[in-house]
Amino acid sequence: MENGKPTFTDVNTLGEFGLIEKLTADITSSHKSTIKGIGDDAAVLQYGDQHLVVSTDLLVEGIHFDLIYSPLKHLGYKAIIVNLSDIYAMNAVPTQVTVSVAISNKYSVEAMEELYAGIKEACRIYKVDLIGGDTTSSPKGMTISVTAIGTVAKDKITYRSGAKKGDILCVSGDLGGAYLGLQILEREKQLYLSNPGIKPDLENQKYVLERQLKPEARKDMIAYFDKEKLVPTAMMDISDGLASDLMHICKASGVGAYVEEAKLPINQEAQMLALKFKLDPATTALNGGEDYELLFTINEKDLEKIRYMPSTYIIGEITGAEDGIKLHTSGGNIHPLKAQGWTHFESNQ
Amino acid sequence: MENGKPTFTDVNTLGEFGLIEKLTADITSSHKSTIKGIGDDAAVLQYGDQHLVVSTDLLVEGIHFDLIYSPLKHLGYKAIIVNLSDIYAMNAVPTQVTVSVAISNKYSVEAMEELYAGIKEACRIYKVDLIGGDTTSSPKGMTISVTAIGTVAKDKITYRSGAKKGDILCVSGDLGGAYLGLQILEREKQLYLSNPGIKPDLENQKYVLERQLKPEARKDMIAYFDKEKLVPTAMMDISDGLASDLMHICKASGVGAYVEEAKLPINQEAQMLALKFKLDPATTALNGGEDYELLFTINEKDLEKIRYMPSTYIIGEITGAEDGIKLHTSGGNIHPLKAQGWTHFESNQ
Repeated sequence: MENGKPTFTDVNTLGEFGLIEKLTADITSSHKSTIKGIGDDAAVLQYGDQHLVVSTDLLVEGIHFDLIYSPLKHLGYKAIIVNLSDIYAMNAVPTQVTVSVAISNKYSVEAMEELYAGIKEACRIYKVDLIGGDTTSSPKGMTISVTAIGTVAKDKITYRSGAKKGDILCVSGDLGGAYLGLQILEREKQLYLSNPGIKPDLENQKYVLERQLKPEARKDMIAYFDKEKLVPTAMMDISDGLASDLMHICKASGVGAYVEEAKLPINQEAQMLALKFKLDPATTALNGGEDYELLFTINEKDLEKIRYMPSTYIIGEITGAEDGIKLHTSGGNIHPLKAQGWTHFESNQ
Repeated sequence: MENGKPTFTDVNTLGEFGLIEKLTADITSSHKSTIKGIGDDAAVLQYGDQHLVVSTDLLVEGIHFDLIYSPLKHLGYKAIIVNLSDIYAMNAVPTQVTVSVAISNKYSVEAMEELYAGIKEACRIYKVDLIGGDTTSSPKGMTISVTAIGTVAKDKITYRSGAKKGDILCVSGDLGGAYLGLQILEREKQLYLSNPGIKPDLENQKYVLERQLKPEARKDMIAYFDKEKLVPTAMMDISDGLASDLMHICKASGVGAYVEEAKLPINQEAQMLALKFKLDPATTALNGGEDYELLFTINEKDLEKIRYMPSTYIIGEITGAEDGIKLHTSGGNIHPLKAQGWTHFESNQ
């Protein structure tokens, strides 16, 4: 750019994961308090006799949210939830968050109070302390940056990298709903833009709309694990979509996986809406993203512990790396599972 | 806004500090690991036998930086420095940082590598581990969010709130330089925009330009304090300007202050440039901001410890709250010290 270099590479050629990998490939840690840096749902630090986990996220208006259909209170709530979800994905309990917000002058004090009402509600419900606050100007739109901190006993921390061949692959709840909620909101937005007089018809779509606009993080799962004395071998939260996120676990663990399409948990409302949108429900479950369910693997010997655990679905198993990541379709075929990721997926709609 | 409330209040009526105060006034902490939340340079947590301090900052293109004159490598460096400065301001030593960057598609991979080269250089020089990285899209411009973590022994943590009447008021280095550097860059930008063929004349301005574009954080001061077994009674870093930041200390500590204009440390180059810009050098030192020096108070009994400490300037003393914050001018007058803050200050130029 301003340094006169002759070649410029479009960041899209690398994608988000490729870019961050390239930028941080040569980073090493020098403090013994740094247990795990970049490359998992959260970084892991050692202070005292517990591990501290730290996760951070940036939400940008026009990319991650659209204020035409996202109420500010819900947005504030969701901004906290998506970060807490990363903390739970380490089998940790979140304790503190910091929130920074950049806003253009189109936002009033009352709008910010709405946003903060959602932020504070999430903090209250999930019992985390809001310890740092910063607001600043932006030339355009809103950006929200949240950093979440949590703690976990050293012998309970769960990375993406611990899955072993033979482990059972589980997910904590139904998938695809948040994506379908987004499709409805986008459709209503287009209708509204072409005719602001139209009243949105959002009946029979409450579940998927809530999945998109006001998701929850699986705090309860961490409590179940604790109660059952179960430590998953690997875990992450499903933000980009099951297929994409499973690939992260397989890559980090050096394993393959086998997913049974018929076992994918799909909510009934989501199923019907997918068909209405002429989408394959299984595809929305595999690639939808933003459901913030936990994807985890457990050792076979722990099977009894999850059999009666609420909202735990066994969807497949971990195989050897040489087997790749395979989908056993409901039609009886077996083929490689492709991660479309949400960006690519959306551009196909 | 979208909730149909009848009144909208412009955020500018409250200002940045007023807004965050309003939004976070009712926040309480529920975890005993939360020692200090919002209201200082950094939040303070208790994990293990040390205190952990956490600070976060959002830098927005067009508000906090201008890429017409800010090289990306310097920008990356500065983004880390401003956060480390907040950690040092707690008398703590930074150990880890997370960095999130949102970029529009005008940025190439090479541009991001430049930015990260600066980020990584700052991490190397200040010995902090980069533990979390996130890059995401933005519809316009660049936003950088940094969270820094540091540690400090419990008996050494220094808040804004500990200043006592009779304490000595000190600053760790010269002031106003960064602001004058900005004035030069803005002038050259205007010249360049009106005639891109003009070569910038930046001779004899290296010091102030570096103060603006590539500031350093006062790591060395924390080491001096440690060596001299000196714990300041209150401390913060000067980001908004001495006057504004001193008011934060006085408000948090419930005290007044007395500043001697003649004692304000001003670099010779900055002094000459201020006059060239028809600005009072003392005014730039009091209100310039972005110098990232440490403003601190010490108990009178520690005077001997700082007398020979490198780059420590005594600029006044702490008085009772009833005395207010006063400036003893070089002309012999005493009048209330006003914090213009940098926004207001700039609009007066």
